[in-house]
Amino acid sequence: MTDDAVTDDLGTGHAAPSGPQAPTMGWFEGRVHHYPLRVFYEDTDFSGIVYYANYLRFFERARSSYFRLIGFEHSKLWDGEDQMAFAIRKVELDYKRPARIDDGLVVQTTYDRFKGARLWVSQACYRGDELLVTAHSEAASITRQGRPKRPPKWMIEKIAPYLEET
Amino acid sequence: MTDDAVTDDLGTGHAAPSGPQAPTMGWFEGRVHHYPLRVFYEDTDFSGIVYYANYLRFFERARSSYFRLIGFEHSKLWDGEDQMAFAIRKVELDYKRPARIDDGLVVQTTYDRFKGARLWVSQACYRGDELLVTAHSEAASITRQGRPKRPPKWMIEKIAPYLEET
Amino acid sequence: MTDDAVTDDLGTGHAAPSGPQAPTMGWFEGRVHHYPLRVFYEDTDFSGIVYYANYLRFFERARSSYFRLIGFEHSKLWDGEDQMAFAIRKVELDYKRPARIDDGLVVQTTYDRFKGARLWVSQACYRGDELLVTAHSEAASITRQGRPKRPPKWMIEKIAPYLEET
Amino acid sequence: MTDDAVTDDLGTGHAAPSGPQAPTMGWFEGRVHHYPLRVFYEDTDFSGIVYYANYLRFFERARSSYFRLIGFEHSKLWDGEDQMAFAIRKVELDYKRPARIDDGLVVQTTYDRFKGARLWVSQACYRGDELLVTAHSEAASITRQGRPKRPPKWMIEKIAPYLEET
Repeated sequence: MTDDAVTDDLGTGHAAPSGPQAPTMGWFEGRVHHYPLRVFYEDTDFSGIVYYANYLRFFERARSSYFRLIGFEHSKLWDGEDQMAFAIRKVELDYKRPARIDDGLVVQTTYDRFKGARLWVSQACYRGDELLVTAHSEAASITRQGRPKRPPKWMIEKIAPYLEET
Repeated sequence: MTDDAVTDDLGTGHAAPSGPQAPTMGWFEGRVHHYPLRVFYEDTDFSGIVYYANYLRFFERARSSYFRLIGFEHSKLWDGEDQMAFAIRKVELDYKRPARIDDGLVVQTTYDRFKGARLWVSQACYRGDELLVTAHSEAASITRQGRPKRPPKWMIEKIAPYLEET
Repeated sequence: MTDDAVTDDLGTGHAAPSGPQAPTMGWFEGRVHHYPLRVFYEDTDFSGIVYYANYLRFFERARSSYFRLIGFEHSKLWDGEDQMAFAIRKVELDYKRPARIDDGLVVQTTYDRFKGARLWVSQACYRGDELLVTAHSEAASITRQGRPKRPPKWMIEKIAPYLEET
Repeated sequence: MTDDAVTDDLGTGHAAPSGPQAPTMGWFEGRVHHYPLRVFYEDTDFSGIVYYANYLRFFERARSSYFRLIGFEHSKLWDGEDQMAFAIRKVELDYKRPARIDDGLVVQTTYDRFKGARLWVSQACYRGDELLVTAHSEAASITRQGRPKRPPKWMIEKIAPYLEET
């Protein structure tokens, strides 16, 4: 199985849209998306660890890759018929252990609930079995002018199998 | 009054250690530190607003400038007798309104309480009177090896006048 | 003289458009713009020095502040009548000495020549008298679609007094 | 062939040290290293394109991944017996075409020559067949104190098969 393959026990059958040498979109294990990344120079600071703001970059890469894997692309949402984007409204970050240069990390992401234009997401950054940082966020789907707007039905249908059971 | 001056109604008399053309350290109004900054290209993303992770950079600049203004410098704490640093353990971010290219912003910072090696800080980013983003953080003073360690007495004495009354 | 004041021996009289507590726009000494900045956590990497890409951020802040000081704002150029921006086409960077956390730096900028839609700029980053990094860049004025377009006459007239004598 | 495999017609046989779900180290085609990456929100600016400094981040990720693939790790070089790092001394960047959100890019890297403590590297960033940005850099191998120091023999022997023929 390549880096881009989908471990998909939901049976929804998302195929990787590009070859094995494309940048990874991560993979699903059940409803949990996994996104692997490497810690580079740019991510660290003089104290020897990953700078605290950079986990928000990692978490966003993971959310975007999750969306890409189920068929949402920012550029098409922004420029296409729907003219929309997602913005984070609230985040709670809990830094438990530091990451360092060269570490291979995995961000685990679940989208939990949709309600109107709001969307809740839980994320955790691991190094192997060690939990490093967690993030609980509230996102909003917005128009290009920044106003909240319920996402179109096709989006909700695509993401529904991955949400929390209710 | 220059950009580097201290509006100090606590009477603790911190003088700006450098000339008016030095990078600003911000200023105090009572126990609230104010740090001005400009939104540049690097801070924005394709959706036209400041990228969400970059507020953590802004908030850190403000906390560091506050420390500098009362006489703490990261490099001296790290390399000096105390061999210490500060790390953020938890942050809650609330994004209320977006900032855009060219905006002049001010980050307001109060350090609220110290307990053992832990320190609580409240921050808010404004554009004029508009509140854009708030952050509530728990920091820890740590050794160079990352272990929590109570800050030295001289630090606590220096920051005490700016903490919440209890 | 405040941080925002203009040392202007060209007699062109640009006044600082905002109070002393606004984020600095730097100042001119002759045709050389000076922009002060502080090295923060975000700028450093685990090797203890400023990460090489971040000087491009510093140089851009300086170019934008130069423009702001003579009356150009990115947001107004982009959204206004002219619908334009500037993009860097080529840069040569020479890293001579490293900067470290807490350093106070000054970026010196001269715009040298305009020709059609192209513009040449020379920049140098100093820590006191020590020259740390130089950059020689070719910029282009472009439309919002990214095509080269000669800047409007009013811009050329505003910047002309600061260009190299020819 | 997975993302991490080595297309190695030099017969030097570097195996990927980790599973297919690890972050990619790219792959070689002859002596040209290929590193794939995705453009995320964090990489773009309000003008809709990738911010110019961020290509230096991309180029560094590619150089580090090249090193990792042939067996050099920054953390081990820094903390281990050799106590060394690499620093960029000069870069020439040529921005030919912009990249945008969601783009899948590939950075191609060749290390060209070693001489004493100096090392020359050529890099190019592609979107499919389109050449977007090139970089020609001079790096130096340095001690932890920042002084130039010839790399150890084992490093030179490992990289020699990938250098330019002379």
